[in-house]
Amino acid sequence: MKWVYIEDIGRHCGEDVEIRGWVYHKRSSGKVRFLVVRDGTGFLQATIFSSEKDHPLFHQFDALTRESSVIVRGAVREEKRSPGGYELCVQDMETLQIAQEYPISPKEHSTAFLMEHRHLWLRSRKQHAVLQVRAEVIRAIRDFFDGRGFRLMDTPVLTPSACEGTTTLFETAYFDQKAYLAQSGQLYNEATAAAFGKVYCFGPTFRAERSKTRRHLLEFWMVEPEVAFATLEDTIELGTDLVLFIVDRVLSRRRSDLEDLERDPKPLEAISKPFVRYTYEDIIPKLQEKGSGMAPGEDFGAAEETLISQLSPGPVCITHFPAKIKAFYMQPDKARPDLVLGVDFMAPEGYGEIIGGGQRIHDLSLLEKRLEEHQLPREAYEWYLDLRRFGACPHSGFGLGVERTVSWMCGIKHIRETIPFPRLLYRLYP
Amino acid sequence: MKWVYIEDIGRHCGEDVEIRGWVYHKRSSGKVRFLVVRDGTGFLQATIFSSEKDHPLFHQFDALTRESSVIVRGAVREEKRSPGGYELCVQDMETLQIAQEYPISPKEHSTAFLMEHRHLWLRSRKQHAVLQVRAEVIRAIRDFFDGRGFRLMDTPVLTPSACEGTTTLFETAYFDQKAYLAQSGQLYNEATAAAFGKVYCFGPTFRAERSKTRRHLLEFWMVEPEVAFATLEDTIELGTDLVLFIVDRVLSRRRSDLEDLERDPKPLEAISKPFVRYTYEDIIPKLQEKGSGMAPGEDFGAAEETLISQLSPGPVCITHFPAKIKAFYMQPDKARPDLVLGVDFMAPEGYGEIIGGGQRIHDLSLLEKRLEEHQLPREAYEWYLDLRRFGACPHSGFGLGVERTVSWMCGIKHIRETIPFPRLLYRLYP
Repeated sequence: MKWVYIEDIGRHCGEDVEIRGWVYHKRSSGKVRFLVVRDGTGFLQATIFSSEKDHPLFHQFDALTRESSVIVRGAVREEKRSPGGYELCVQDMETLQIAQEYPISPKEHSTAFLMEHRHLWLRSRKQHAVLQVRAEVIRAIRDFFDGRGFRLMDTPVLTPSACEGTTTLFETAYFDQKAYLAQSGQLYNEATAAAFGKVYCFGPTFRAERSKTRRHLLEFWMVEPEVAFATLEDTIELGTDLVLFIVDRVLSRRRSDLEDLERDPKPLEAISKPFVRYTYEDIIPKLQEKGSGMAPGEDFGAAEETLISQLSPGPVCITHFPAKIKAFYMQPDKARPDLVLGVDFMAPEGYGEIIGGGQRIHDLSLLEKRLEEHQLPREAYEWYLDLRRFGACPHSGFGLGVERTVSWMCGIKHIRETIPFPRLLYRLYP
Repeated sequence: MKWVYIEDIGRHCGEDVEIRGWVYHKRSSGKVRFLVVRDGTGFLQATIFSSEKDHPLFHQFDALTRESSVIVRGAVREEKRSPGGYELCVQDMETLQIAQEYPISPKEHSTAFLMEHRHLWLRSRKQHAVLQVRAEVIRAIRDFFDGRGFRLMDTPVLTPSACEGTTTLFETAYFDQKAYLAQSGQLYNEATAAAFGKVYCFGPTFRAERSKTRRHLLEFWMVEPEVAFATLEDTIELGTDLVLFIVDRVLSRRRSDLEDLERDPKPLEAISKPFVRYTYEDIIPKLQEKGSGMAPGEDFGAAEETLISQLSPGPVCITHFPAKIKAFYMQPDKARPDLVLGVDFMAPEGYGEIIGGGQRIHDLSLLEKRLEEHQLPREAYEWYLDLRRFGACPHSGFGLGVERTVSWMCGIKHIRETIPFPRLLYRLYP
């Protein structure tokens, strides 16, 4: 008999098939036993019917516990009342393992307990839905860039120097040297962009932050495009199109997951071009009006991110930050050299910053000056300076955080559920 | 004027366009100046024609050095004699930066020199071709698994315990704990496979190996599928189909890159199903015949990998290894419990192992026994044991190394050129 997955069951109506999965739920009603089986791609009602009270399948059924592994065989038929619209009329069943008492029940568990059992919690309906959305978001991102001729150029995790700040780095011995886990692939992207025109890297990044907020992970995935000859304006357009592409894809392909998550799709459906834009200097008074105590010249905190996201039903772009609160490589504005051509995209509904980027310095002497001002070790950046010696050009890019984007799509407040095995301040297990 | 990329130039024949790129080559001939510009997506001849000796564009042309960044504008026309079949009749040119003397010339450089200048070496034609093939291989892998309903489930890099061996781990402080950089996502895949049926992870993996061979990187990318309810046979079929899919994709989409690499496509075109198979015990005498000094019960060395690849014009699958040379989680063969249901795929033409995998132990008590035998810390594996307590089932998977696959596709002997920024024993820069 052919082994098929539940998501494909509709194509096998009337056929005898084999389903391999786990017991999700069971109930009895007279001469019928209902077994809801999940196989990771869906849920299917498997029905055992017999007028013999002592039917061997009934005994097998009785022994089954939640999450027991089974193979059920039988004919697929349409059944409007069944979840998914089909059911399996069981002719034969194989029990592979009777599961011990499953620790996760429909009752409320503490977050600590669920995180400790993350390897099992993944099987729960909501977690399952979140991670399906995650896979879709990642696929959408890759389709977007591959479809626009960007070359995927993986950047290293093990790096000899820090990209932004040195206080939040994971360090490891690299034989006789020290290596740091990359916080960004951007500097390397600038080299590959000069070789391939438009590139992106997409991998895990690391920040050893001692902060315990709902928006931070110590290990998270980030996609970072970089385009040679592109300006801040080009980057804002690219980021806008990417966000719209992701939203569209999630709405068109993962609507049932959003339903499982009780995520209202309307705020997502309302997102459109162009996104509202403010300069840093223009937004400060707006935030102060709304009660922010932030002084001009400071960076946004979580409170400000939330306030900003109330300014528009869609993402809000903020540009032209004070140079001193941004990274050393940011290109100054010609008219106002104390400001840099950076941009942050704030997600709506309070989900915080999802994109940060901008135009990079392409002038050799300015970059040398900045390295000095930031007291960065010149030697480690010689290769990066080379990019300004050999064919320098304006270039821009950004980073989009996958987990924050997924938390926005799914409407879940804490980022820890948007990655299979989150790494948090006190969480390295499982 | 519209900025277009050279790879799209054919769609703009007869139009005025703008190309942004770098000077690759230039030459003069009477009233004509030929500039070959690269923009990362291709090469284009830009022609400046004038009967005035003193034309300002000629002066601009004279000042240009290799890798200088320029914007050229003009009409696209067909020109059979030009590389790519088109040329640009320059009306206007903007010089962004005159490059300093470019350190990489067509003459021979030492590998050490090229690796030290990897950020620039990437711009060279062959390196460019290799990395285009790499991007295509990665895209093919994702299309293959996404197309077959596999769910992408990212596994963590920072892990509390070792998957295979502990001598080759990068260690980092994780606040008050120790964390290790993942050598494989497999154990985590087993958890997500039980939640999603069929999954894959695809990310960088790390081995702090003190070996300096042409087949090893300290940081490399690996795709790892895992399928619940799948056996060794299913895994061999899946791996075979994946390899064929990759070969096909590279042949159909990256033929010009293979040409740039002078890679003979015939050995790739000859690959077909099924791959030749041997058990470990059957292949030993074959290897000894060919001069291997390997004793039964040992693992293959580089010499054996090369000998094996001479046994067939396609990949060779080897199965049923002695349990003691393989990882603790490998499922024993029922008939011969001293052997495990593992499989290695050896690439042809001497490119070594590209796939390693097999069926995992699903029996709780056997796995507990193995952890003890291997003196692995039980506590760290409690979650992994849970997968055998709650719905255990036969399950299988494998890992395919991206860089080895790319080196095989490209026909290049040393793996260091198959990743943008290789990490080797004494190589952490740039």
